[in-house]
Amino acid sequence: MIKVAVNGYGTIGKRVADAVSAQKDMEIIGVSKTRPSSEALVANKRGYPLYIADISKKQAFEAAGIKVAGSVEEMIQKADVVVDATPGGVGEKNKALYEKYGKKAAWEGGEKHELAGFSFNSSCNYKEAVGRQFVRVVSCNTTGLCRIINEIKNEFGVNKVRATMVRRGSDPGGIKKGPVDAVVLNPVTIPSHHGPDVLTVIPDIDIVTTAMIVPTTFMHMHVVQMDLKNPATVERVLELIEANPRIGLVREGLGITSTAEIKEYASDLGRPRADLWESCIFEESVSVLNETELYFFQAIHQEADVVVETVDAIRAMAGEVVDPAESIKMTNEALGFTPI
Amino acid sequence: MIKVAVNGYGTIGKRVADAVSAQKDMEIIGVSKTRPSSEALVANKRGYPLYIADISKKQAFEAAGIKVAGSVEEMIQKADVVVDATPGGVGEKNKALYEKYGKKAAWEGGEKHELAGFSFNSSCNYKEAVGRQFVRVVSCNTTGLCRIINEIKNEFGVNKVRATMVRRGSDPGGIKKGPVDAVVLNPVTIPSHHGPDVLTVIPDIDIVTTAMIVPTTFMHMHVVQMDLKNPATVERVLELIEANPRIGLVREGLGITSTAEIKEYASDLGRPRADLWESCIFEESVSVLNETELYFFQAIHQEADVVVETVDAIRAMAGEVVDPAESIKMTNEALGFTPI
Amino acid sequence: MIKVAVNGYGTIGKRVADAVSAQKDMEIIGVSKTRPSSEALVANKRGYPLYIADISKKQAFEAAGIKVAGSVEEMIQKADVVVDATPGGVGEKNKALYEKYGKKAAWEGGEKHELAGFSFNSSCNYKEAVGRQFVRVVSCNTTGLCRIINEIKNEFGVNKVRATMVRRGSDPGGIKKGPVDAVVLNPVTIPSHHGPDVLTVIPDIDIVTTAMIVPTTFMHMHVVQMDLKNPATVERVLELIEANPRIGLVREGLGITSTAEIKEYASDLGRPRADLWESCIFEESVSVLNETELYFFQAIHQEADVVVETVDAIRAMAGEVVDPAESIKMTNEALGFTPI
Amino acid sequence: MIKVAVNGYGTIGKRVADAVSAQKDMEIIGVSKTRPSSEALVANKRGYPLYIADISKKQAFEAAGIKVAGSVEEMIQKADVVVDATPGGVGEKNKALYEKYGKKAAWEGGEKHELAGFSFNSSCNYKEAVGRQFVRVVSCNTTGLCRIINEIKNEFGVNKVRATMVRRGSDPGGIKKGPVDAVVLNPVTIPSHHGPDVLTVIPDIDIVTTAMIVPTTFMHMHVVQMDLKNPATVERVLELIEANPRIGLVREGLGITSTAEIKEYASDLGRPRADLWESCIFEESVSVLNETELYFFQAIHQEADVVVETVDAIRAMAGEVVDPAESIKMTNEALGFTPI
Repeated sequence: MIKVAVNGYGTIGKRVADAVSAQKDMEIIGVSKTRPSSEALVANKRGYPLYIADISKKQAFEAAGIKVAGSVEEMIQKADVVVDATPGGVGEKNKALYEKYGKKAAWEGGEKHELAGFSFNSSCNYKEAVGRQFVRVVSCNTTGLCRIINEIKNEFGVNKVRATMVRRGSDPGGIKKGPVDAVVLNPVTIPSHHGPDVLTVIPDIDIVTTAMIVPTTFMHMHVVQMDLKNPATVERVLELIEANPRIGLVREGLGITSTAEIKEYASDLGRPRADLWESCIFEESVSVLNETELYFFQAIHQEADVVVETVDAIRAMAGEVVDPAESIKMTNEALGFTPI
Repeated sequence: MIKVAVNGYGTIGKRVADAVSAQKDMEIIGVSKTRPSSEALVANKRGYPLYIADISKKQAFEAAGIKVAGSVEEMIQKADVVVDATPGGVGEKNKALYEKYGKKAAWEGGEKHELAGFSFNSSCNYKEAVGRQFVRVVSCNTTGLCRIINEIKNEFGVNKVRATMVRRGSDPGGIKKGPVDAVVLNPVTIPSHHGPDVLTVIPDIDIVTTAMIVPTTFMHMHVVQMDLKNPATVERVLELIEANPRIGLVREGLGITSTAEIKEYASDLGRPRADLWESCIFEESVSVLNETELYFFQAIHQEADVVVETVDAIRAMAGEVVDPAESIKMTNEALGFTPI
Repeated sequence: MIKVAVNGYGTIGKRVADAVSAQKDMEIIGVSKTRPSSEALVANKRGYPLYIADISKKQAFEAAGIKVAGSVEEMIQKADVVVDATPGGVGEKNKALYEKYGKKAAWEGGEKHELAGFSFNSSCNYKEAVGRQFVRVVSCNTTGLCRIINEIKNEFGVNKVRATMVRRGSDPGGIKKGPVDAVVLNPVTIPSHHGPDVLTVIPDIDIVTTAMIVPTTFMHMHVVQMDLKNPATVERVLELIEANPRIGLVREGLGITSTAEIKEYASDLGRPRADLWESCIFEESVSVLNETELYFFQAIHQEADVVVETVDAIRAMAGEVVDPAESIKMTNEALGFTPI
Repeated sequence: MIKVAVNGYGTIGKRVADAVSAQKDMEIIGVSKTRPSSEALVANKRGYPLYIADISKKQAFEAAGIKVAGSVEEMIQKADVVVDATPGGVGEKNKALYEKYGKKAAWEGGEKHELAGFSFNSSCNYKEAVGRQFVRVVSCNTTGLCRIINEIKNEFGVNKVRATMVRRGSDPGGIKKGPVDAVVLNPVTIPSHHGPDVLTVIPDIDIVTTAMIVPTTFMHMHVVQMDLKNPATVERVLELIEANPRIGLVREGLGITSTAEIKEYASDLGRPRADLWESCIFEESVSVLNETELYFFQAIHQEADVVVETVDAIRAMAGEVVDPAESIKMTNEALGFTPI
């Protein structure tokens, strides 16, 4: 059993904890919070030992009816692998702690590539992560781009990728961030940083990305265009997608034309927290023009797609499973993750 | 086993089907849809026989990979009780069908009181529904008002109720209805129709309601003020709420100050579809001024609170269980519905 | 001519500058900004001398094509009256500067009553402001409540006021603040601070307020209920509103049922920035129940209603005009502010 | 003086009426409405004779305090040119009426190209419209694309255009249409119809467009990419934009990164209804990669950009002014339309 600690039990961390907990070869030995909250209470209810950053706040937690197991530093010592899901920038400061105790650590995409020195995506470079001490699981958008680019590149070759990302303003549980009624260019400059981030995983492609933020809470919408080296057909592209364990198809024919309808469907399927671990490509959007120009829309659940990648990253770092397909299968099956 | 058909497998109907299916004394013998859709597919996946309004569309369903069991009229004949969760106004037209086959039927709050001749709320008038052929389960807002008014009235007596309802513009899965950036008075006139609707369940109170619509998708927020006949304390009011099996407390102390944070918490608790079957009263909002003026905020999940009431209504109509407390307990336990 | 400086040329400040500039007895001698921006450019285009807080940034302004007249401290010295429209909390720190040069100053409602020692509303207490050195113009919501409470109280007497304020999440030009999809209780506790703020202007009433924030950008919606000392009729209330130079009626009969439709109407009327200086009461919402219970909805433009009050405050402080009706008339006429 | 009637005094029609009214060579002889409304009242206030579709409703208008000049058919007879700004699809039915009286007519982009047989954009094909009986002014998005494509094509040549349009869900004054919290693909299929619509004006280009709808009310955001025949530089592209009388630059350096901030700036500039008649290209977004790949963001005000085009179309049809540059200059100057 791989002993996993989740440092930062928030939007991503709580999902990683549940996904790890479902795996046969892993167990959660602790999760951490900085303040008493409903999330901390849920950690208790789920039976995850709760550690806190500042042990002097123990009383505040207990006053709110929340049990505390100890300090974060104690938690780290008990783990084989630490998943650092603290807010962007905070994770960097924790590196010294992981080094002090010689622990393996996986950061999320809010941190820079250089921190871990290796950026991870299960389908693209699992094998290179086997046995590593540090990895960074790339962000939700980068993960979504890497999955499909890798699949298409392996089959047809890719000369150029252009992608526009229409991002959510706030997570569903957030109340502070906007915008309320605006499309915000983020960044205004072209290209955005997302393209270079893809290069940390798939180094040898030409990619230009643009990004904006809109007043929604659920999923990012990607418009993707690829110039292929070899001719493709819509049918073959759809076959590749259907065969990929981390990409799903959603269908206008069943009434799905938006992020809201995908979420409703995921809820109806009983997915925990309506999580879409897969990239959701709109079947009817897949188009091939002039034989080598591929277009499609894909929706990416910003809270969920990196969760399954993180589980794979833990497994790769632990070193027992060296075949990516095997890890992906193990992760998916343990979650009951069947095609959407 | 009470054989239940759900006519209209949409936002409310699909939730009722799952809740009925979880009960030990009930089974779903069929659900209905008018068009192929992801919801129809989910009915198949859940094992609910799917009946369709217009049997000539059977081929269209099958072309979409959805199995059809027969026509709605066939479904009705197999049921002991039909839950009519068709869109507001459609349910009225179905009455003749239920009468034709001598079936019991429960409508939802989109229909008028006169259609069923009896408006139902588990806590308020379960006993009067025992053995009835027709009942109407009141709307989400009326349900939320009835629960707490009944509780407070029984303990302190109530001279006057004033409530403002800030309603969601669209359900989470909807994409057509707005508003996008407006507060809409609906209606402009005061009082709104919600007060009179409460009177169909609790006839002898003085209530004035106002209502508006805002650009949100999840939960209605009620500002409630009651003039009591006898002095109250915050402590006693909180005790009553905690003891009520259909009202819950949410706490600013745990970081919950909004509808979004309630939803996140319900998701974290693993509630199916993040459903809040209970009214959610904000603990820190409960105030008693001048001994007899009670104020509080409550959030009402428009898709969910009537679901558990509908299950109780089915049980009352079937006639085996005559005690409301027993039915409420059976319903809640079958759902694993523990306090939020 | 009263020489006016506007310290803080932002959402409120730029409107005050334009309104002051339109008055026959006033002139703008300067406005201030802290950073180069499109607003600073507009100040230049309008011919308002632009002063900056940190004179070392002069080059940055000039690089952006914006002319700078000098430092804020220089601006203060040239003014008879300073309007401090800096962000909430900053205004407090500026007091020493105004005292140093013996200048009169008017703060906006983001500052506390104690800072100025006098809270101003044209209709309620203009005369008490005549000749004062410091006044605070109360916030948009307090202004909206004071106007109508004062009017109703003078005619019928008021035993109790209850008001719920449904507030916008962000100003129209903002992109950072949310919420995106939530109703946020702000505060969760009841009563909110708005009631006590009304008491700084109208001390002798019993008022209870509640407040929440929704994802809109334009206007706050108030649900107001008043228990009157003497019987009222809808007709008489409407007469009082129509006669009030700072309260307007909007009509469902002309298709206005929301904040969005009011804005469209104000735009169509050619109001600068679609500004609603008046409180907008929904005519068809005005209701009198049981002879002494008055109910209505009013929409308050958060960016605009305090602007005309600020102009009056300047005039009162300057001391030439001692009659509130005369000042209100002068302010309104200079703006071409005719009934909506 | 060209006598202009505006059939359909709504979002576009009222703006066209004001713009026409400002021209030295045109006058408004009437505008039309179907129902009493605040817009009808504004027509009265602006002095536009108001005609109504169904003269039997005259009393209803008068009861609302709105003066009626006669029937739409009477209005048509008095006009030289009719601008048909009725809702999409309705304009088609009006054609017979214009033919009956031998009047010239300009439809808006909600109608199909075939209805008029000629699709108009001032910069692209003004001369071909001179003296025509019927023209269709293309939609806001097509107008925005045509302006910049024409400019770039004339200078560098264009091999391919790819554009993604992120569209507003509702106009600012609307309250019914959503979405509230979703990105909606509209259409799901790729390419969208916008590309072919551009071809009705600029026939000889290769263009692929995609489109989606988001919960905003103001402006559409375009991500545009063009493969050029000849090398370009950012400097030269910016020069072309600055010289174009219908395209403007907005600057991140002045704090403008979003649609909301553009609107605020337009309001501050005193633009009527905050109208952006120009396409707004984000200066810092303009990028040239590999010498011939041009990228930029442009925001298009869906209510306004076609207004100035419509004025030019009227002038072309009337036949006195045959030079597009002269008409564009006349239109712009009459509106005081100076660079943003």
